[in-house]
Amino acid sequence: MSVLSTLLHHVDTAPASDSGFLAFKTFTNSDLQKVNKLILEKLHSSVPLIPEVANHLIQTGGKRVRPCLTLAATKLFSETEHRQIGLATAVEFIHTATLLHDDVVDESELRRGQATANTIFGNKSSVLVGDFLFSRAFELMVDDGSMQTLKSLARASSIIAEGEVLQLATTCNLETTEDDYIKVISYKTGELFAAAANVAGLICDRSEAEVKALYDYGLSLGIAFQVIDDILDYSAKQQELGKTIGNDFSECKMTLPVIHAYQNATTSDEKAFWTRCVENKIQNPADFNQALSYIQKNKSLDYAFDKAEQYGKIALQALKSLPQNQANGILRDLIHFVLNRGY
Amino acid sequence: MSVLSTLLHHVDTAPASDSGFLAFKTFTNSDLQKVNKLILEKLHSSVPLIPEVANHLIQTGGKRVRPCLTLAATKLFSETEHRQIGLATAVEFIHTATLLHDDVVDESELRRGQATANTIFGNKSSVLVGDFLFSRAFELMVDDGSMQTLKSLARASSIIAEGEVLQLATTCNLETTEDDYIKVISYKTGELFAAAANVAGLICDRSEAEVKALYDYGLSLGIAFQVIDDILDYSAKQQELGKTIGNDFSECKMTLPVIHAYQNATTSDEKAFWTRCVENKIQNPADFNQALSYIQKNKSLDYAFDKAEQYGKIALQALKSLPQNQANGILRDLIHFVLNRGY
Repeated sequence: MSVLSTLLHHVDTAPASDSGFLAFKTFTNSDLQKVNKLILEKLHSSVPLIPEVANHLIQTGGKRVRPCLTLAATKLFSETEHRQIGLATAVEFIHTATLLHDDVVDESELRRGQATANTIFGNKSSVLVGDFLFSRAFELMVDDGSMQTLKSLARASSIIAEGEVLQLATTCNLETTEDDYIKVISYKTGELFAAAANVAGLICDRSEAEVKALYDYGLSLGIAFQVIDDILDYSAKQQELGKTIGNDFSECKMTLPVIHAYQNATTSDEKAFWTRCVENKIQNPADFNQALSYIQKNKSLDYAFDKAEQYGKIALQALKSLPQNQANGILRDLIHFVLNRGY
Repeated sequence: MSVLSTLLHHVDTAPASDSGFLAFKTFTNSDLQKVNKLILEKLHSSVPLIPEVANHLIQTGGKRVRPCLTLAATKLFSETEHRQIGLATAVEFIHTATLLHDDVVDESELRRGQATANTIFGNKSSVLVGDFLFSRAFELMVDDGSMQTLKSLARASSIIAEGEVLQLATTCNLETTEDDYIKVISYKTGELFAAAANVAGLICDRSEAEVKALYDYGLSLGIAFQVIDDILDYSAKQQELGKTIGNDFSECKMTLPVIHAYQNATTSDEKAFWTRCVENKIQNPADFNQALSYIQKNKSLDYAFDKAEQYGKIALQALKSLPQNQANGILRDLIHFVLNRGY
């Protein structure tokens, strides 16, 4: 909570985490309405199951952080540009496709506190509707007509898939290092945030340095976002977040809290606990509470939060080389929101 | 076996089905070597599991009909063009991604007589490596640098996904009509054959009419290919094909042989049999043989074969408006091969 928070408090009246996000959503709201309309339009299909699954996704839709990032970043440079609508929609489709495939993969029963699409419609539909969304995302990029934006988003999609496979390889592996973890989350989360931001620079025909600054901002923000997400799985109350906690633990995911707690384990009992639960996947109902207590003892969530803050600082730094206007302030507040949501 | 075969025998010395395919492969061989090299290059990833799954795919690689279609179609117009290499690779990646996702979806234990990737590496890897291949396909299209080819292949990808979802909706549904079936296979198979063929016209800058003729050829060839595939699941010996038969039956897929046999069922026992096995998914070990015998009684495979031939005729017709050269002859022989493989 230290350096970055102080910085943010210094540069602006301290925004409450929710009001920061509210400002972000309000700022992008008129464009977001257009995105929501386009989402519905592009989900149209003569195949009945597709709008059905799609409507479920819309209704349980998340915060739309990624498309709003494209919308807000565009406003750094232009109030009249319109290409961001289609690209923000493509970004949301790529993200939703990933979620659908992630739900299949993780067999997680709950996402955002509601039944996941695969629980209701079956794994088959989740895989295939995910593929449909992914394809539609590419059609939207083709409609945009620029090879540069296509290249940026196609690259991100490829890296996301690599990140997901890499995550699979680190699962249950207690030898996973913090560097491995940062690579996984840069790939699976950071790169789409980065592309969502830098396409704004591409469509507004900005300098290479500015496009790079947007990329750096998005990448670091995405990494911070994911670290916080991984913290929340060991800390927030399910009711508050509308999400079951402990999923990562039961799926033996090597997220930063576990990596840190394991590396700082002092007794052989503590080491043996992680080996049994994570490496050997043998878990009893009481184990999650034991995991929480080891994580607390080693201050692993604080450690992870400091790490998230470091990336928040990089994101903040990147904003300095971009136009200093209202959009810049909104993007700065977004860092604050990402770091402080629900923690 | 009638009209089209006669036509083909008339226009050319009757090629044996295998020698027809051999000629097709020989004709495209030097380009196919380049495609195979590019496949290996583009599967490179710093994430260890990806080359592993990829090598499995290469080793159990199919006939590469789709990329060879792009290669052969390009030779209709040019011997010096080189853009077909990257696009043929993209086509194969899209196809392989679909297979990987299809294996997860269908839980089929065998494909091409060998263990499927998901049996060895798990469903998780199949979904994610499929996503990776799909993304890499789009990167290859972006590298090609033409919005026209991108549009064609992005559209095909979207329609394939719709076809897979539609197939899911028709599964176990005895009310599925022949029209529904043709729509499913046009979407899930025909459209990629169509795009694989028509990108050749696009990169060689041919007239709209020629691009359309290539599309029509590919679409009809793909439909014929899929009808034959669906016939084979009720007819060919597993050893001959290296493939288990009866998969479609046990998965309650409404393919043409079943649609025809059910619609022509004459006794209430026969109707009740399909209702129990396909609609209610209650199957005993002896049921597949009973299904085969009903299919034989109703001449459903002959009916399906005639249908495949009708599409073969459309494909043949489309070739007439394209340059009459060696490539054209090869594409004509390919129709013959598709219709006669293993039947």
